[in-house]
Amino acid sequence: MKKTVIVLMASCLVQLAAAQTNDSVAISRIFKEVMVNGRAYDNLRQLCKQIGPRLSGSPEAARAVEMTRLMLQQAGADTVYLQPCMVPHWVRGKNEHAELTLSDGNRLSMKMCALGNSVGTPAVGTQAQVVEVGGMEELAKLGEKGVKGKIVFFNKPMNPLHVRTFRAYGECGIVRWGGPTEAARYGAVAAVVRSLASNVDEYPHTGVTEYNDSFPKIPAIAISTNDAEQLSELLKKDRGLQLNLFTSCQMLPDELSYNVIGEIKGTVHPDQYITVGGHLDSWDLAEGAHDDGAGCMQSIEIIRAFKSAGMKPRHTIRAVMFMNEENGGRGGEAYYAAAKQKSEKHLFAIESDAGGFTPRGFATGMGEKSFKQMLKWKPLFEPYDLHQFSNDGSGSDIYHLKEMGCMVAELRPDSQRYFDIHHAATDTFESVSKRELLLGAFAMGALIYLMDVHPLK
Amino acid sequence: MKKTVIVLMASCLVQLAAAQTNDSVAISRIFKEVMVNGRAYDNLRQLCKQIGPRLSGSPEAARAVEMTRLMLQQAGADTVYLQPCMVPHWVRGKNEHAELTLSDGNRLSMKMCALGNSVGTPAVGTQAQVVEVGGMEELAKLGEKGVKGKIVFFNKPMNPLHVRTFRAYGECGIVRWGGPTEAARYGAVAAVVRSLASNVDEYPHTGVTEYNDSFPKIPAIAISTNDAEQLSELLKKDRGLQLNLFTSCQMLPDELSYNVIGEIKGTVHPDQYITVGGHLDSWDLAEGAHDDGAGCMQSIEIIRAFKSAGMKPRHTIRAVMFMNEENGGRGGEAYYAAAKQKSEKHLFAIESDAGGFTPRGFATGMGEKSFKQMLKWKPLFEPYDLHQFSNDGSGSDIYHLKEMGCMVAELRPDSQRYFDIHHAATDTFESVSKRELLLGAFAMGALIYLMDVHPLK
Repeated sequence: MKKTVIVLMASCLVQLAAAQTNDSVAISRIFKEVMVNGRAYDNLRQLCKQIGPRLSGSPEAARAVEMTRLMLQQAGADTVYLQPCMVPHWVRGKNEHAELTLSDGNRLSMKMCALGNSVGTPAVGTQAQVVEVGGMEELAKLGEKGVKGKIVFFNKPMNPLHVRTFRAYGECGIVRWGGPTEAARYGAVAAVVRSLASNVDEYPHTGVTEYNDSFPKIPAIAISTNDAEQLSELLKKDRGLQLNLFTSCQMLPDELSYNVIGEIKGTVHPDQYITVGGHLDSWDLAEGAHDDGAGCMQSIEIIRAFKSAGMKPRHTIRAVMFMNEENGGRGGEAYYAAAKQKSEKHLFAIESDAGGFTPRGFATGMGEKSFKQMLKWKPLFEPYDLHQFSNDGSGSDIYHLKEMGCMVAELRPDSQRYFDIHHAATDTFESVSKRELLLGAFAMGALIYLMDVHPLK
Repeated sequence: MKKTVIVLMASCLVQLAAAQTNDSVAISRIFKEVMVNGRAYDNLRQLCKQIGPRLSGSPEAARAVEMTRLMLQQAGADTVYLQPCMVPHWVRGKNEHAELTLSDGNRLSMKMCALGNSVGTPAVGTQAQVVEVGGMEELAKLGEKGVKGKIVFFNKPMNPLHVRTFRAYGECGIVRWGGPTEAARYGAVAAVVRSLASNVDEYPHTGVTEYNDSFPKIPAIAISTNDAEQLSELLKKDRGLQLNLFTSCQMLPDELSYNVIGEIKGTVHPDQYITVGGHLDSWDLAEGAHDDGAGCMQSIEIIRAFKSAGMKPRHTIRAVMFMNEENGGRGGEAYYAAAKQKSEKHLFAIESDAGGFTPRGFATGMGEKSFKQMLKWKPLFEPYDLHQFSNDGSGSDIYHLKEMGCMVAELRPDSQRYFDIHHAATDTFESVSKRELLLGAFAMGALIYLMDVHPLK
């Protein structure tokens, strides 16, 4: 008996060691394929330079659908198809501007942009005094008495003390998506938001704002962090200054658009899915290189690299270019609805939507038991300088899938530069490093490989 | 007796916990001071934009000495002084160019630059056929028969499979600093080196080359990686193509220059030193923002932050702007010579000369026992996403100090982007992120704090 146990144990250990070796060999094969032959960077150049900004519902978004459909075919996907979804179609319009008139008559123009989904001003613009608040609590304290008839200026800088910048963004986000409508509750005529940016420069950062139907829809804009600091200084000396805003943005009727999907058919469980994705739409001001051209091109790269390196995944791998993450999330909803309707089994989904920077690790959304199992894979990632594993992630286009028992994850790239360029004109192809972009594709590819071969329970 | 042991042990544990808490509080104080009030980024803008390139011996290097002297004073250093050293004074000259003449008479101009310390061509230029080699071994195989009278083209790309790019640079470095003189050994009339760059673009990267007095000094240039790939393609079809080089660079007599040093006097051991430094000189093509304006400004920042946060180091902290790292290393030698001559006790020295990117950790040069002790500090660094600790580092301006028993270290920033811009015109202020730069200063500040309070044995 004892002998049997010892033999069994020895055999287990040998098998375990062999599995780890096989895994590390397979992972290094993916690494080599991506780093040497990777196409993600060239594809990203094409997306950013031949199309550029591609807001949901725009002709450019439609061209991006067609372009990535072709890219997935060229990457060697077994199947490529479009998944329809209706998307909002917001347009910025022309001639948006903001000008301060000081009490002494001097005028100052500001670097601004309308927030996504905002209504425009009347044709004559909106002119009013400005009241500055640091956030929602301060706004509530001022109440109708302090706010009515005025333009509310939300001046909440991102906290530089959070090592990971997404935490600072999370704290500030509410003033952009919830601030304008709260200002309307108290009778404000418009809202100005300090750009959600970690640096101080002259570029305004857009992003979605949301209206509450109980209150009037008021025009909402962002100003550059530079101008926010200047406006705050000016208000200390000149509370009577007037701000004149003009925007001509509007929401048009919904448009038909698509998620773009490419698959490698699973050899053992073709009806069980592993999803990797990014979102294809971008804000209209930016090439959307990091947000989220990077995630899309990395997802296509995984299809290409797996095919090219002769990997034969047991489960079906799907690369998904989600449409409309920025101002609606309709692509993610459509993907979930279709999966539910077809009763698909979704094993795992991973999203890259935090920029094409050097990957540091992953944030997952799974049970603690599964997460503990996953942590055993850490040694396989360490040679690639991937150290961060936490179980606090999700992904805005894939979180619905959790309701179907799917484990989810997001790639965690280095976050230091992301909010310098996020939703601004500076999110260009030139701000992406080829190696960093490819390393992100590799990191996700390695995790997908492990999830495919050793599905977690 | 037993009771005494238990009481002693409990007391030790309490003290240890208290020490860790004190340390983490002190470290978070440094973090806050650097991230909120840090001046390194604004100082770097000043250095890059008001002075720019500052090769040893140039008037710009002299201005950089004066500028950083003032910065150290403004940072609150107790003492600021200049440490003289004679430095080489190489100048690029004007009108350098390289042109290919194909066998069909067509001509193509190439993006090129002379390598640092290279001799110039004759006034009529150097014209010859080109022979391509992948490295030193291939060159030796060709020998005099294959090389004599020709221009040797070293085309050795950086290996993309090394996760940390310095390893790939290390492998390629020899063709730049040793290739031209080896080509001369076999009778080559000039040498062309593929830029040591991890990306493929149109910018040539300079860097030092070294002559061996046994062989003639031949002109040496770098061409852009783009042009290297093109030249290699052309040579496959047209082995008779001619390359015409012209450079007018030359080495002038040595100049007097300086290391710039600022100190905070130690409260307990004023005559024992902890050094933090970067090098002040840069190549003449670049603003030298990452290489190594970043390291200099981070070192000044540590002085500023320690003074401003009221830290009272026990040992004297010295920030050193080393002169002439790029093409001579005379500043580092002068610092070591002075320390030895005065029999100074040097506890620890750390260098930042790998770019102002997100810090990932440290590479030290110390005994294994000390390194093991240091690893106990890892938990203090993890909240700041500093994970990499290895005992394989040194630093080109501080390694001499090891001979005096000084422990040394180098900051290890993320290396993915560094060799895209290293020694090229693209190493500009704009390529530096404020947060990344400040995080690097903080990381070194935290390690210096620990070394000061708990000196390793």
